[in-house]
Amino acid sequence: MTTQQLVTQIKKKKSFLCIGLDVDLDKIPQHLLQEEDPIFAFNKAIIDATHHLCIAYKPNTAFYEAYGIKGWKALEKTINYLNEKHPEIFTIADAKRGDIGNTSTMYAKAFFEDLAFDSVTVAPYMGKDSVEPFLAFENKHTIMLALTSNQGAFDFQTLSVNNQELYKQVLETSKTWNNAQNLMYVVGATKAEYLADIRKIIPESFLLVPGVGAQGGNLQDVCKYGMTDTVGLLINSSRGIIYASKENNFAEAAAKKASELQQQMEAILSA
Amino acid sequence: MTTQQLVTQIKKKKSFLCIGLDVDLDKIPQHLLQEEDPIFAFNKAIIDATHHLCIAYKPNTAFYEAYGIKGWKALEKTINYLNEKHPEIFTIADAKRGDIGNTSTMYAKAFFEDLAFDSVTVAPYMGKDSVEPFLAFENKHTIMLALTSNQGAFDFQTLSVNNQELYKQVLETSKTWNNAQNLMYVVGATKAEYLADIRKIIPESFLLVPGVGAQGGNLQDVCKYGMTDTVGLLINSSRGIIYASKENNFAEAAAKKASELQQQMEAILSA
Repeated sequence: MTTQQLVTQIKKKKSFLCIGLDVDLDKIPQHLLQEEDPIFAFNKAIIDATHHLCIAYKPNTAFYEAYGIKGWKALEKTINYLNEKHPEIFTIADAKRGDIGNTSTMYAKAFFEDLAFDSVTVAPYMGKDSVEPFLAFENKHTIMLALTSNQGAFDFQTLSVNNQELYKQVLETSKTWNNAQNLMYVVGATKAEYLADIRKIIPESFLLVPGVGAQGGNLQDVCKYGMTDTVGLLINSSRGIIYASKENNFAEAAAKKASELQQQMEAILSA
Repeated sequence: MTTQQLVTQIKKKKSFLCIGLDVDLDKIPQHLLQEEDPIFAFNKAIIDATHHLCIAYKPNTAFYEAYGIKGWKALEKTINYLNEKHPEIFTIADAKRGDIGNTSTMYAKAFFEDLAFDSVTVAPYMGKDSVEPFLAFENKHTIMLALTSNQGAFDFQTLSVNNQELYKQVLETSKTWNNAQNLMYVVGATKAEYLADIRKIIPESFLLVPGVGAQGGNLQDVCKYGMTDTVGLLINSSRGIIYASKENNFAEAAAKKASELQQQMEAILSA
Protein backbone atom coordinates (compact mmCIF):
# COMPACT_ATOMS: atom_id res chain seq x y z
CA MET A 1 0.00 0.00 0.00
CA THR A 2 1.27 3.47 -0.82
CA THR A 3 1.24 6.27 1.74
CA GLN A 4 -1.19 8.13 -0.56
CA GLN A 5 -3.65 5.22 -0.38
CA LEU A 6 -3.42 5.34 3.40
CA VAL A 7 -4.10 9.08 3.44
CA THR A 8 -7.07 8.63 1.08
CA GLN A 9 -8.57 6.06 3.43
CA ILE A 10 -8.08 8.34 6.45
CA LYS A 11 -9.93 11.17 4.69
CA LYS A 12 -12.73 8.88 3.52
CA LYS A 13 -13.35 7.28 6.91
CA LYS A 14 -12.58 10.45 8.90
CA SER A 15 -10.53 8.25 11.17
CA PHE A 16 -6.89 7.58 11.91
CA LEU A 17 -7.60 4.78 14.36
CA CYS A 18 -5.53 1.61 14.46
CA ILE A 19 -6.93 -1.31 16.44
CA GLY A 20 -4.44 -3.58 18.18
CA LEU A 21 -5.36 -7.26 17.88
CA ASP A 22 -3.53 -8.51 20.99
CA VAL A 23 -5.51 -11.63 21.71
CA ASP A 24 -5.09 -13.19 25.15
CA LEU A 25 -7.20 -16.35 25.59
CA ASP A 26 -7.65 -15.51 29.27
CA LYS A 27 -9.35 -12.23 28.37
CA ILE A 28 -11.69 -13.10 25.49
CA PRO A 29 -15.31 -14.19 26.00
CA GLN A 30 -15.09 -17.73 27.26
CA HIS A 31 -17.75 -19.12 24.91
CA LEU A 32 -15.27 -18.55 22.05
CA LEU A 33 -12.96 -21.20 23.52
CA GLN A 34 -15.31 -23.81 22.06
CA GLU A 35 -14.50 -22.60 18.54
CA GLU A 36 -11.96 -24.51 16.46
CA ASP A 37 -9.73 -21.41 16.35
CA PRO A 38 -10.74 -19.10 19.22
CA ILE A 39 -8.12 -16.47 18.38
CA PHE A 40 -9.26 -16.10 14.78
CA ALA A 41 -12.93 -16.26 15.78
CA PHE A 42 -12.33 -13.36 18.14
CA ASN A 43 -10.38 -11.33 15.56
CA LYS A 44 -12.96 -11.95 12.84
CA ALA A 45 -15.79 -10.74 15.07
CA ILE A 46 -13.81 -7.62 16.05
CA ILE A 47 -12.88 -6.88 12.42
CA ASP A 48 -16.45 -7.40 11.17
CA ALA A 49 -17.74 -4.98 13.82
CA THR A 50 -15.08 -2.24 13.53
CA HIS A 51 -13.60 -2.15 10.00
CA HIS A 52 -15.61 0.93 8.98
CA LEU A 53 -14.30 2.88 11.99
CA CYS A 54 -10.55 2.26 11.72
CA ILE A 55 -7.93 2.46 9.01
CA ALA A 56 -5.43 -0.06 10.36
CA TYR A 57 -5.16 -3.28 12.38
CA LYS A 58 -2.07 -4.20 14.34
CA PRO A 59 -1.64 -7.73 15.67
CA ASN A 60 1.25 -7.90 18.13
CA THR A 61 3.09 -11.09 17.21
CA ALA A 62 3.98 -11.90 20.83
CA PHE A 63 0.38 -12.84 21.55
CA TYR A 64 0.36 -15.32 18.65
CA GLU A 65 3.81 -16.81 19.24
CA ALA A 66 2.84 -17.52 22.84
CA TYR A 67 0.36 -20.11 21.49
CA GLY A 68 2.90 -21.80 19.22
CA ILE A 69 1.81 -23.26 15.88
CA LYS A 70 -1.89 -22.64 16.53
CA GLY A 71 -1.07 -19.01 17.28
CA TRP A 72 0.80 -18.61 13.99
CA LYS A 73 -2.06 -20.24 12.13
CA ALA A 74 -4.45 -17.75 13.73
CA LEU A 75 -2.15 -14.87 12.72
CA GLU A 76 -2.02 -16.17 9.15
CA LYS A 77 -5.80 -16.52 9.00
CA THR A 78 -6.24 -13.02 10.41
CA ILE A 79 -3.97 -11.31 7.87
CA ASN A 80 -5.47 -13.36 5.03
CA TYR A 81 -8.97 -12.38 6.12
CA LEU A 82 -7.99 -8.71 6.23
CA ASN A 83 -6.28 -8.81 2.82
CA GLU A 84 -9.24 -10.59 1.21
CA LYS A 85 -12.15 -8.74 2.80
CA HIS A 86 -10.64 -5.32 3.45
CA PRO A 87 -7.62 -4.79 1.19
CA GLU A 88 -7.89 -1.01 1.68
CA ILE A 89 -7.02 -1.37 5.38
CA PHE A 90 -3.39 -0.84 6.43
CA THR A 91 -1.93 -3.83 8.27
CA ILE A 92 0.87 -3.71 10.81
CA ALA A 93 2.82 -6.71 12.10
CA ASP A 94 3.90 -5.42 15.50
CA ALA A 95 6.94 -7.66 15.74
CA LYS A 96 9.76 -5.30 16.79
CA ARG A 97 12.29 -7.33 14.83
CA GLY A 98 15.89 -6.51 13.96
CA ASP A 99 19.00 -8.54 13.16
CA ILE A 100 22.10 -8.37 10.99
CA GLY A 101 21.63 -7.83 7.25
CA ASN A 102 20.85 -11.20 5.70
CA THR A 103 18.82 -12.20 8.73
CA SER A 104 16.71 -9.05 8.64
CA THR A 105 15.96 -9.90 5.01
CA MET A 106 14.50 -13.20 6.24
CA TYR A 107 12.28 -11.31 8.71
CA ALA A 108 11.21 -8.91 5.97
CA LYS A 109 10.25 -11.86 3.76
CA ALA A 110 8.33 -13.43 6.65
CA PHE A 111 6.14 -10.38 7.20
CA PHE A 112 6.01 -8.68 3.79
CA GLU A 113 5.86 -11.75 1.55
CA ASP A 114 4.80 -14.86 3.46
CA LEU A 115 2.21 -13.06 5.59
CA ALA A 116 1.71 -10.06 3.23
CA PHE A 117 1.48 -7.33 5.86
CA ASP A 118 1.77 -3.71 4.68
CA SER A 119 4.22 -2.87 7.44
CA VAL A 120 6.29 -4.23 10.31
CA THR A 121 7.72 -2.65 13.45
CA VAL A 122 11.51 -2.86 13.96
CA ALA A 123 13.99 -2.01 16.72
CA PRO A 124 16.88 0.39 15.95
CA TYR A 125 19.63 -0.82 18.32
CA MET A 126 21.60 -2.74 15.66
CA GLY A 127 21.67 0.22 13.26
CA LYS A 128 21.52 0.80 9.53
CA ASP A 129 22.26 -2.67 8.16
CA SER A 130 19.59 -4.18 10.41
CA VAL A 131 16.84 -1.85 9.10
CA GLU A 132 17.71 -1.22 5.45
CA PRO A 133 16.78 -4.78 4.38
CA PHE A 134 13.18 -3.96 5.39
CA LEU A 135 13.27 -0.58 3.60
CA ALA A 136 14.15 -2.24 0.29
CA PHE A 137 10.58 -3.54 -0.18
CA GLU A 138 8.51 -1.24 -2.41
CA ASN A 139 5.17 -0.02 -1.09
CA LYS A 140 5.89 -1.67 2.26
CA HIS A 141 6.49 0.37 5.40
CA THR A 142 8.99 -0.07 8.19
CA ILE A 143 7.90 1.38 11.51
CA MET A 144 10.92 1.94 13.72
CA LEU A 145 10.84 2.32 17.49
CA ALA A 146 11.81 5.87 18.41
CA LEU A 147 10.27 6.88 21.75
CA THR A 148 8.16 4.13 23.27
CA SER A 149 5.23 4.48 25.66
CA ASN A 150 6.64 2.46 28.56
CA GLN A 151 8.59 3.57 31.64
CA GLY A 152 11.70 1.76 30.33
CA ALA A 153 11.88 4.34 27.52
CA PHE A 154 13.75 6.53 30.00
CA ASP A 155 16.50 3.93 30.55
CA PHE A 156 18.26 4.50 27.22
CA GLN A 157 16.05 6.33 24.68
CA THR A 158 16.23 9.67 26.46
CA LEU A 159 19.93 9.56 27.39
CA SER A 160 21.91 12.45 25.95
CA VAL A 161 24.17 11.71 22.95
CA ASN A 162 25.72 14.46 20.82
CA ASN A 163 23.79 17.02 22.90
CA GLN A 164 20.40 15.52 22.16
CA GLU A 165 18.38 12.55 23.35
CA LEU A 166 19.24 9.17 21.81
CA TYR A 167 15.78 8.83 20.20
CA LYS A 168 16.34 12.10 18.34
CA GLN A 169 19.69 10.81 17.14
CA VAL A 170 17.92 7.65 15.97
CA LEU A 171 15.45 9.79 14.00
CA GLU A 172 18.19 11.97 12.48
CA THR A 173 20.41 9.05 11.50
CA SER A 174 17.58 7.01 10.01
CA LYS A 175 16.78 9.83 7.57
CA THR A 176 20.11 9.15 5.83
CA TRP A 177 19.38 5.47 5.14
CA ASN A 178 18.49 4.07 1.72
CA ASN A 179 14.75 4.21 1.00
CA ALA A 180 14.14 6.26 4.15
CA GLN A 181 10.86 7.35 2.57
CA ASN A 182 9.53 3.93 3.63
CA LEU A 183 10.07 4.71 7.32
CA MET A 184 7.42 5.44 9.89
CA TYR A 185 8.13 5.72 13.62
CA VAL A 186 6.68 4.58 16.94
CA VAL A 187 6.15 7.46 19.39
CA GLY A 188 4.17 6.76 22.56
CA ALA A 189 1.11 8.87 23.34
CA THR A 190 2.24 9.00 26.97
CA LYS A 191 4.97 11.38 25.81
CA ALA A 192 2.87 13.75 23.67
CA GLU A 193 4.82 16.83 24.77
CA TYR A 194 7.87 15.43 22.98
CA LEU A 195 6.03 15.46 19.64
CA ALA A 196 6.69 19.12 18.83
CA ASP A 197 10.44 18.49 18.90
CA ILE A 198 10.05 15.23 16.98
CA ARG A 199 8.16 17.04 14.20
CA LYS A 200 11.14 19.38 13.75
CA ILE A 201 13.22 16.33 12.76
CA ILE A 202 10.63 14.34 10.80
CA PRO A 203 7.98 16.85 9.71
CA GLU A 204 6.13 14.54 7.31
CA SER A 205 6.60 10.92 8.45
CA PHE A 206 3.69 8.90 9.72
CA LEU A 207 3.83 8.07 13.43
CA LEU A 208 2.33 4.99 15.03
CA VAL A 209 1.16 6.16 18.42
CA PRO A 210 0.38 3.56 21.09
CA GLY A 211 -0.67 4.40 24.61
CA VAL A 212 -3.96 6.28 24.12
CA GLY A 213 -6.49 4.89 26.57
CA ALA A 214 -5.28 2.06 28.80
CA GLN A 215 -1.82 3.58 29.16
CA GLY A 216 -3.10 7.10 29.83
CA GLY A 217 -2.14 9.04 26.68
CA ASN A 218 -4.36 11.90 25.54
CA LEU A 219 -5.68 12.06 21.94
CA GLN A 220 -6.04 15.86 21.82
CA ASP A 221 -2.46 16.42 22.99
CA VAL A 222 -1.06 13.94 20.47
CA CYS A 223 -2.92 15.68 17.62
CA LYS A 224 -1.98 19.17 18.81
CA TYR A 225 1.74 18.42 18.67
CA GLY A 226 1.97 15.61 16.14
CA MET A 227 -0.53 16.12 13.31
CA THR A 228 0.64 17.04 9.80
CA ASP A 229 -1.13 18.31 6.66
CA THR A 230 -1.76 14.69 5.69
CA VAL A 231 -2.63 13.72 9.29
CA GLY A 232 0.57 11.70 9.75
CA LEU A 233 -0.77 9.81 12.75
CA LEU A 234 -1.96 6.25 13.36
CA ILE A 235 -3.43 6.19 16.85
CA ASN A 236 -3.46 2.70 18.27
CA SER A 237 -5.82 1.35 20.88
CA SER A 238 -5.78 -2.32 21.82
CA ARG A 239 -7.18 -3.37 25.20
CA GLY A 240 -9.47 -0.32 25.48
CA ILE A 241 -11.37 -1.50 22.40
CA ILE A 242 -11.07 -5.27 22.07
CA TYR A 243 -11.71 -6.01 25.74
CA ALA A 244 -14.54 -3.51 26.21
CA SER A 245 -16.77 -6.43 27.17
CA LYS A 246 -16.19 -10.08 28.01
CA GLU A 247 -19.82 -10.98 27.34
CA ASN A 248 -21.61 -12.17 24.20
CA ASN A 249 -21.85 -8.54 23.07
CA PHE A 250 -18.04 -8.09 22.98
CA ALA A 251 -17.90 -7.13 19.31
CA GLU A 252 -20.67 -4.51 19.66
CA ALA A 253 -18.95 -3.16 22.76
CA ALA A 254 -15.67 -2.93 20.84
CA ALA A 255 -17.43 -1.10 18.00
CA LYS A 256 -18.92 1.35 20.49
CA LYS A 257 -15.48 2.16 21.93
CA ALA A 258 -13.97 2.42 18.43
CA SER A 259 -16.83 4.68 17.36
CA GLU A 260 -16.20 7.02 20.29
CA LEU A 261 -12.57 7.39 19.24
CA GLN A 262 -13.51 7.78 15.55
CA GLN A 263 -15.95 10.57 16.44
CA GLN A 264 -13.28 12.38 18.44
CA MET A 265 -10.97 12.03 15.44
CA GLU A 266 -13.64 13.29 13.03
CA ALA A 267 -14.13 16.36 15.24
CA ILE A 268 -10.39 17.03 15.26
CA LEU A 269 -10.11 16.58 11.48
CA SER A 270 -12.98 19.00 10.78
CA ALA A 271 -11.85 21.62 13.30
CA MET B 1 19.42 -25.31 32.86
CA THR B 2 21.59 -23.73 35.53
CA THR B 3 24.80 -21.88 34.70
CA GLN B 4 26.67 -24.52 36.69
CA GLN B 5 25.29 -27.27 34.45
CA LEU B 6 26.47 -25.30 31.43
CA VAL B 7 29.97 -24.93 32.90
CA THR B 8 30.10 -28.64 33.74
CA GLN B 9 29.27 -29.51 30.14
CA ILE B 10 31.95 -27.12 28.82
CA LYS B 11 34.58 -28.79 30.99
CA LYS B 12 33.46 -32.28 30.04
CA LYS B 13 33.42 -31.67 26.29
CA LYS B 14 36.41 -29.30 26.33
CA SER B 15 34.38 -27.05 24.07
CA PHE B 16 32.50 -23.77 24.30
CA LEU B 17 31.20 -23.96 20.76
CA CYS B 18 27.65 -22.95 19.86
CA ILE B 19 26.38 -23.97 16.43
CA GLY B 20 23.93 -21.62 14.74
CA LEU B 21 21.09 -23.46 13.00
CA ASP B 22 20.25 -20.79 10.42
CA VAL B 23 18.64 -22.92 7.75
CA ASP B 24 18.23 -21.39 4.32
CA LEU B 25 16.56 -23.78 1.84
CA ASP B 26 18.62 -22.25 -0.98
CA LYS B 27 21.84 -23.29 0.74
CA ILE B 28 21.18 -26.82 2.00
CA PRO B 29 21.95 -29.93 -0.07
CA GLN B 30 19.22 -30.06 -2.67
CA HIS B 31 18.42 -33.75 -2.17
CA LEU B 32 16.98 -32.81 1.24
CA LEU B 33 14.21 -30.85 -0.47
CA GLN B 34 12.52 -34.19 -1.21
CA GLU B 35 12.12 -34.82 2.54
CA GLU B 36 8.76 -34.09 4.18
CA ASP B 37 10.42 -31.48 6.39
CA PRO B 38 13.72 -30.45 4.75
CA ILE B 39 14.59 -27.92 7.48
CA PHE B 40 14.26 -30.46 10.28
CA ALA B 41 15.97 -33.16 8.23
CA PHE B 42 18.95 -30.82 7.79
CA ASN B 43 19.03 -29.84 11.48
CA LYS B 44 18.74 -33.46 12.64
CA ALA B 45 21.67 -34.52 10.47
CA ILE B 46 23.78 -31.59 11.70
CA ILE B 47 22.89 -32.29 15.35
CA ASP B 48 23.56 -36.03 15.03
CA ALA B 49 26.98 -35.29 13.54
CA THR B 50 28.11 -32.48 15.87
CA HIS B 51 26.45 -32.82 19.31
CA HIS B 52 29.62 -34.22 20.94
CA LEU B 53 31.65 -31.23 19.74
CA CYS B 54 29.47 -28.33 20.86
CA ILE B 55 27.69 -27.29 24.03
CA ALA B 56 24.91 -25.18 22.53
CA TYR B 57 22.69 -24.83 19.46
CA LYS B 58 21.22 -21.53 18.37
CA PRO B 59 18.44 -21.44 15.77
CA ASN B 60 17.86 -17.88 14.57
CA THR B 61 14.08 -17.55 14.44
CA ALA B 62 14.14 -15.32 11.34
CA PHE B 63 15.08 -18.30 9.17
CA TYR B 64 12.10 -20.27 10.44
CA GLU B 65 9.55 -17.45 10.34
CA ALA B 66 10.48 -16.80 6.72
CA TYR B 67 8.89 -20.17 5.87
CA GLY B 68 5.67 -19.50 7.79
CA ILE B 69 3.85 -22.33 9.54
CA LYS B 70 6.12 -25.01 8.14
CA GLY B 71 9.11 -23.06 9.43
CA TRP B 72 7.63 -22.88 12.92
CA LYS B 73 6.88 -26.59 12.84
CA ALA B 74 10.51 -27.25 11.91
CA LEU B 75 11.66 -25.04 14.79
CA GLU B 76 9.39 -26.89 17.20
CA LYS B 77 10.63 -30.28 15.97
CA THR B 78 14.24 -29.13 16.27
CA ILE B 79 13.95 -27.94 19.89
CA ASN B 80 11.95 -31.03 20.83
CA TYR B 81 14.60 -33.26 19.27
CA LEU B 82 17.34 -31.45 21.18
CA ASN B 83 15.46 -31.59 24.49
CA GLU B 84 14.71 -35.29 24.09
CA LYS B 85 18.01 -36.59 22.71
CA HIS B 86 20.47 -34.11 24.22
CA PRO B 87 18.96 -32.47 27.30
CA GLU B 88 22.44 -31.50 28.52
CA ILE B 89 22.92 -29.14 25.56
CA PHE B 90 22.16 -25.45 26.09
CA THR B 91 19.58 -24.11 23.63
CA ILE B 92 19.29 -20.51 22.46
CA ALA B 93 16.33 -19.02 20.60
CA ASP B 94 18.04 -16.21 18.73
CA ALA B 95 14.92 -14.09 18.44
CA LYS B 96 16.07 -10.61 19.53
CA ARG B 97 12.67 -9.85 21.03
CA GLY B 98 11.57 -6.99 23.26
CA ASP B 99 8.28 -5.22 23.96
CA ILE B 100 6.43 -3.53 26.81
CA GLY B 101 5.92 -5.51 30.02
CA ASN B 102 2.89 -7.75 29.52
CA THR B 103 3.85 -8.34 25.90
CA SER B 104 7.40 -9.39 26.77
CA THR B 105 5.86 -11.91 29.15
CA MET B 106 4.06 -13.42 26.15
CA TYR B 107 7.36 -13.70 24.27
CA ALA B 108 9.00 -15.27 27.32
CA LYS B 109 6.20 -17.84 27.49
CA ALA B 110 6.58 -18.55 23.77
CA PHE B 111 10.28 -19.39 24.03
CA PHE B 112 10.71 -20.64 27.61
CA GLU B 113 7.46 -22.58 28.02
CA ASP B 114 5.84 -23.39 24.67
CA LEU B 115 9.15 -24.15 22.90
CA ALA B 116 11.17 -24.91 26.08
CA PHE B 117 14.40 -23.20 25.09
CA ASP B 118 16.99 -22.58 27.82
CA SER B 119 17.53 -19.01 26.68
CA VAL B 120 16.41 -16.26 24.33
CA THR B 121 18.14 -13.20 22.90
CA VAL B 122 16.52 -9.81 23.56
CA ALA B 123 17.07 -6.21 22.44
CA PRO B 124 17.66 -3.50 25.08
CA TYR B 125 16.21 -0.38 23.42
CA MET B 126 12.90 -0.40 25.37
CA GLY B 127 14.63 -0.70 28.73
CA LYS B 128 14.04 -2.39 32.05
CA ASP B 129 10.36 -3.27 31.84
CA SER B 130 10.88 -4.90 28.43
CA VAL B 131 13.61 -7.25 29.73
CA GLU B 132 12.65 -8.03 33.33
CA PRO B 133 9.68 -10.22 32.28
CA PHE B 134 12.21 -12.62 30.70
CA LEU B 135 14.47 -12.52 33.76
CA ALA B 136 11.66 -13.71 36.02
CA PHE B 137 11.91 -17.28 34.70
CA GLU B 138 14.03 -19.47 36.96
CA ASN B 139 16.90 -21.41 35.38
CA LYS B 140 16.25 -19.67 32.06
CA HIS B 141 18.71 -17.19 30.59
CA THR B 142 18.15 -13.89 28.84
CA ILE B 143 20.88 -12.94 26.41
CA MET B 144 20.77 -9.19 25.78
CA LEU B 145 22.32 -7.44 22.80
CA ALA B 146 25.22 -5.28 23.97
CA LEU B 147 27.77 -4.80 21.18
CA THR B 148 26.78 -6.60 18.00
CA SER B 149 29.07 -7.91 15.25
CA ASN B 150 27.67 -5.88 12.34
CA GLN B 151 28.75 -2.52 10.91
CA GLY B 152 25.49 -0.92 12.15
CA ALA B 153 26.73 -1.43 15.72
CA PHE B 154 28.59 1.86 15.25
CA ASP B 155 25.38 3.80 14.47
CA PHE B 156 24.09 3.90 18.05
CA GLN B 157 25.78 1.30 20.31
CA THR B 158 29.12 3.13 20.42
CA LEU B 159 27.75 6.68 20.76
CA SER B 160 28.91 8.42 23.90
CA VAL B 161 26.40 8.78 26.76
CA ASN B 162 27.40 9.81 30.28
CA ASN B 163 31.05 9.79 29.13
CA GLN B 164 30.99 6.18 27.99
CA GLU B 165 29.68 4.25 25.00
CA LEU B 166 25.98 3.41 24.99
CA TYR B 167 26.62 -0.35 25.09
CA LYS B 168 28.59 0.10 28.31
CA GLN B 169 25.71 2.07 29.77
CA VAL B 170 23.39 -0.77 28.73
CA LEU B 171 25.64 -3.25 30.58
CA GLU B 172 25.87 -1.05 33.71
CA THR B 173 22.13 -0.36 33.87
CA SER B 174 21.13 -3.98 33.28
CA LYS B 175 23.10 -5.06 36.36
CA THR B 176 20.57 -3.20 38.53
CA TRP B 177 17.54 -5.07 37.18
CA ASN B 178 15.65 -7.75 39.10
CA ASN B 179 17.12 -11.24 38.60
CA ALA B 180 20.11 -9.79 36.73
CA GLN B 181 21.93 -13.03 37.52
CA ASN B 182 19.90 -14.54 34.65
CA LEU B 183 21.49 -12.17 32.12
CA MET B 184 24.05 -13.07 29.48
CA TYR B 185 25.15 -10.67 26.73
CA VAL B 186 25.81 -10.66 22.99
CA VAL B 187 29.25 -9.26 22.11
CA GLY B 188 30.48 -9.66 18.54
CA ALA B 189 33.81 -11.37 17.89
CA THR B 190 34.59 -8.71 15.30
CA LYS B 191 35.10 -6.32 18.21
CA ALA B 192 37.32 -8.52 20.42
CA GLU B 193 39.46 -5.57 21.53
CA TYR B 194 36.42 -4.15 23.34
CA LEU B 195 36.18 -7.24 25.54
CA ALA B 196 38.77 -6.12 28.10
CA ASP B 197 36.66 -3.04 28.93
CA ILE B 198 33.47 -5.10 28.91
CA ARG B 199 34.92 -7.53 31.44
CA LYS B 200 35.53 -4.61 33.83
CA ILE B 201 31.75 -4.06 33.92
CA ILE B 202 30.55 -7.67 33.81
CA PRO B 203 33.47 -9.80 35.05
CA GLU B 204 31.51 -13.05 35.40
CA SER B 205 28.60 -13.06 32.94
CA PHE B 206 28.49 -15.45 30.04
CA LEU B 207 28.89 -13.82 26.63
CA LEU B 208 27.39 -15.15 23.42
CA VAL B 209 29.95 -14.28 20.76
CA PRO B 210 28.89 -14.39 17.10
CA GLY B 211 31.15 -13.44 14.24
CA VAL B 212 33.98 -15.97 14.47
CA GLY B 213 34.62 -17.37 11.02
CA ALA B 214 32.40 -16.04 8.23
CA GLN B 215 32.34 -12.54 9.73
CA GLY B 216 36.10 -12.44 10.38
CA GLY B 217 36.35 -12.57 14.19
CA ASN B 218 39.37 -14.27 15.75
CA LEU B 219 38.94 -17.00 18.40
CA GLN B 220 42.29 -16.41 20.13
CA ASP B 221 41.62 -12.68 20.54
CA VAL B 222 38.14 -13.28 21.94
CA CYS B 223 39.50 -15.74 24.52
CA LYS B 224 42.45 -13.51 25.42
CA TYR B 225 40.21 -10.60 26.36
CA GLY B 226 36.92 -12.27 27.25
CA MET B 227 37.54 -15.58 29.04
CA THR B 228 36.75 -15.96 32.75
CA ASP B 229 37.59 -18.58 35.38
CA THR B 230 34.47 -20.49 34.35
CA VAL B 231 35.13 -19.81 30.63
CA GLY B 232 32.20 -17.38 30.33
CA LEU B 233 32.09 -17.61 26.54
CA LEU B 234 29.75 -19.25 24.04
CA ILE B 235 31.42 -18.91 20.64
CA ASN B 236 28.89 -19.17 17.85
CA SER B 237 29.56 -20.29 14.32
CA SER B 238 26.71 -20.77 11.86
CA ARG B 239 27.47 -20.65 8.14
CA GLY B 240 31.12 -21.70 8.58
CA ILE B 241 29.95 -25.04 10.00
CA ILE B 242 26.51 -25.90 8.64
CA TYR B 243 27.30 -24.94 5.04
CA ALA B 244 30.77 -26.48 4.93
CA SER B 245 29.53 -28.68 2.08
CA LYS B 246 26.44 -28.72 -0.12
CA GLU B 247 26.99 -32.34 -1.10
CA ASN B 248 25.74 -35.63 0.40
CA ASN B 249 28.57 -35.45 2.94
CA PHE B 250 27.33 -32.12 4.40
CA ALA B 251 26.95 -33.47 7.94
CA GLU B 252 30.43 -34.99 7.99
CA ALA B 253 31.84 -31.76 6.58
CA ALA B 254 30.04 -29.79 9.30
CA ALA B 255 31.46 -32.14 11.96
CA LYS B 256 34.94 -31.63 10.54
CA LYS B 257 34.64 -27.84 10.80
CA ALA B 258 33.13 -28.10 14.29
CA SER B 259 35.92 -30.46 15.33
CA GLU B 260 38.57 -27.98 14.15
CA LEU B 261 37.03 -25.29 16.35
CA GLN B 262 36.60 -27.69 19.29
CA GLN B 263 40.28 -28.64 19.07
CA GLN B 264 41.31 -24.99 19.07
CA MET B 265 39.11 -24.51 22.13
CA GLU B 266 40.57 -27.57 23.88
CA ALA B 267 44.06 -26.19 23.30
CA ILE B 268 43.07 -22.83 24.75
CA LEU B 269 41.39 -24.44 27.78
CA SER B 270 44.43 -26.60 28.57
CA ALA B 271 46.98 -23.80 28.03
